[in-house]
Amino acid sequence: MIMKYYDSQKIKKLITDIAKGAGVPERDALILSDALVEADVHGTYTHGISRVNIYIRRIQRGLTNPRADITVERRRGSVIAVDAGNGLGHVQAYKVLELLIPIAKSTGIAAATIRNSQHFGALSYYCNKAADKDMILFATTNAEPAMAPEGGYQAYFGTNPIAVSIPTGKGYHIKIDLSTSVVARGNIIAASKEGKEIPPGWALDPDGNPTVDVEKALAGTVLTMAGHKGYALALMVEVFSGVLSGAAVGSSIGSMYKNLDRKQDLGHFFCLMDIDAFMDLPVFRKRIDAMIDEIKACKKRPGIEEILIPGERSFRIANKNRERGIPISNATLKELRALCEQYNIPFAL
Amino acid sequence: MIMKYYDSQKIKKLITDIAKGAGVPERDALILSDALVEADVHGTYTHGISRVNIYIRRIQRGLTNPRADITVERRRGSVIAVDAGNGLGHVQAYKVLELLIPIAKSTGIAAATIRNSQHFGALSYYCNKAADKDMILFATTNAEPAMAPEGGYQAYFGTNPIAVSIPTGKGYHIKIDLSTSVVARGNIIAASKEGKEIPPGWALDPDGNPTVDVEKALAGTVLTMAGHKGYALALMVEVFSGVLSGAAVGSSIGSMYKNLDRKQDLGHFFCLMDIDAFMDLPVFRKRIDAMIDEIKACKKRPGIEEILIPGERSFRIANKNRERGIPISNATLKELRALCEQYNIPFAL
Repeated sequence: MIMKYYDSQKIKKLITDIAKGAGVPERDALILSDALVEADVHGTYTHGISRVNIYIRRIQRGLTNPRADITVERRRGSVIAVDAGNGLGHVQAYKVLELLIPIAKSTGIAAATIRNSQHFGALSYYCNKAADKDMILFATTNAEPAMAPEGGYQAYFGTNPIAVSIPTGKGYHIKIDLSTSVVARGNIIAASKEGKEIPPGWALDPDGNPTVDVEKALAGTVLTMAGHKGYALALMVEVFSGVLSGAAVGSSIGSMYKNLDRKQDLGHFFCLMDIDAFMDLPVFRKRIDAMIDEIKACKKRPGIEEILIPGERSFRIANKNRERGIPISNATLKELRALCEQYNIPFAL
Repeated sequence: MIMKYYDSQKIKKLITDIAKGAGVPERDALILSDALVEADVHGTYTHGISRVNIYIRRIQRGLTNPRADITVERRRGSVIAVDAGNGLGHVQAYKVLELLIPIAKSTGIAAATIRNSQHFGALSYYCNKAADKDMILFATTNAEPAMAPEGGYQAYFGTNPIAVSIPTGKGYHIKIDLSTSVVARGNIIAASKEGKEIPPGWALDPDGNPTVDVEKALAGTVLTMAGHKGYALALMVEVFSGVLSGAAVGSSIGSMYKNLDRKQDLGHFFCLMDIDAFMDLPVFRKRIDAMIDEIKACKKRPGIEEILIPGERSFRIANKNRERGIPISNATLKELRALCEQYNIPFAL
């Protein structure tokens, strides 16, 4: 398949305009488009502009409030519990991060739970924003049911990801952003769009049998990474993001694509640390760079040319994509074009 | 092998006396013996009294300071950076937890890094203490080199565990305590003591080849769980526990058993949250119990009788072990007997 590449700044402008067309205030539309396009820029194509259509459709159906405020429902010292007002996940999470930054600057650490939210894309977007300010954001979110507890075969947990970014002196952030499933659900959706099978060990069908069929896998359950360990971590994420926030938990969470009649009510958890509260920043930077150098100098297994630091590959992709543009599939182009027509926006990429 | 069982209270008394004999102040000796015996009580035999001998030997060789204080080197608001003074890991970590509790009660969340420490046993000991107070402790530690980064075969990371306990209304805490390796190094040591082979997929030999030989595995590297995901999480643990604390990092960490000429200089990370800062406690308890009920009611895969919550199995073992006593291997009995003789303590179990 021949891919065409498009300038990321132009796409941001287009998506900002589409969001504004759907009733999102300008500043919020800018947050949304930045979050989405940055995912594509970094090669996380499953969490970028391919999702614009569903976010806008959910606004159009009244399932997401494009003008929602965030409400701090509870505050003690370094902790806030936030109601996202059923607004756009990206926008509300970004606003919560903005609230946390001065708290963490003041007390060294700050945490927030966010309830009544929606799918909010790639967690590393928020983590990278924190790392830009020499802070470390540990972030988790629950997600629509996809994964069974170890020993079960009923979708209960989402693919419940954990993310953290760490600033370095190497020109890129260490970027950890992983689902607690064997693979992110996005990978199965991607295989589905390409008409491929998935490898064995990824998923169970709706009857609890192993499957390589994408449709059966999407109707069934994704397996947890490393068996009971992934189960335990998915449960931790569910407690932090769902139970502690007051959001929906487990199978009560609405599906973004399937449930076009109710809100998702996702929950997120942010824990933000100011590095300087623990250690002088130049010392930290020297230490983190020394660790990176040591890891990259480790002896390599046969066939391995380079040991990569998490985030290094996506940093390289980002450099390339900022220059040549980001690839957009025909399916996504078609969706964007239709949205532009609907809101009378010139389709200029 | 016929196992004999011994009363846990009597063993605590014995280990307290041995520690006092080695120069540990009484209160600290009580912390150490409680931490060790509770690991055995909960079935974590790899992190309990089988380690007494090495802890005491390291004190005897002057590698651990049995009377060390903890020093808060840096404090800002809800964050403390602590120097453990090369004291006993269990004792110093417990003291740090005691410092964190009032901070988290006041500001909702508190974090500590701990450097200049030693092997401190099972993380869930500290996490459970926090859960006893309706708080959630997220804990990590680095550890002596055992695991290569993804793509490498040189021991760099320890098995870098992550732990968190969550209070419930079910009579037990959810207890998550997992190494980021395929298995904890303790499992390989246990296989070694029993003269068994390890399953394929656990480890690489010193030349980077897969192995089932325990000695080669112990000389080589343990594999990360779930490949690059375990690598990413091990790196996160190393940053939180090692880089950010000022402790030794990666392959600079001393081995407890092999390096009998230098300190370990381990680093730990504690992040303590007061549930009540986020949500009314009765509401949280109701929500966590509802989640547990839902998970346990999920459809079971063939051959699975019950879906277990992390911590449920060890809770049942603890009930059994408190009643019948804890099993002690002949090797450990012999070590304890020798220590008793050395310190003129009656060996009364």
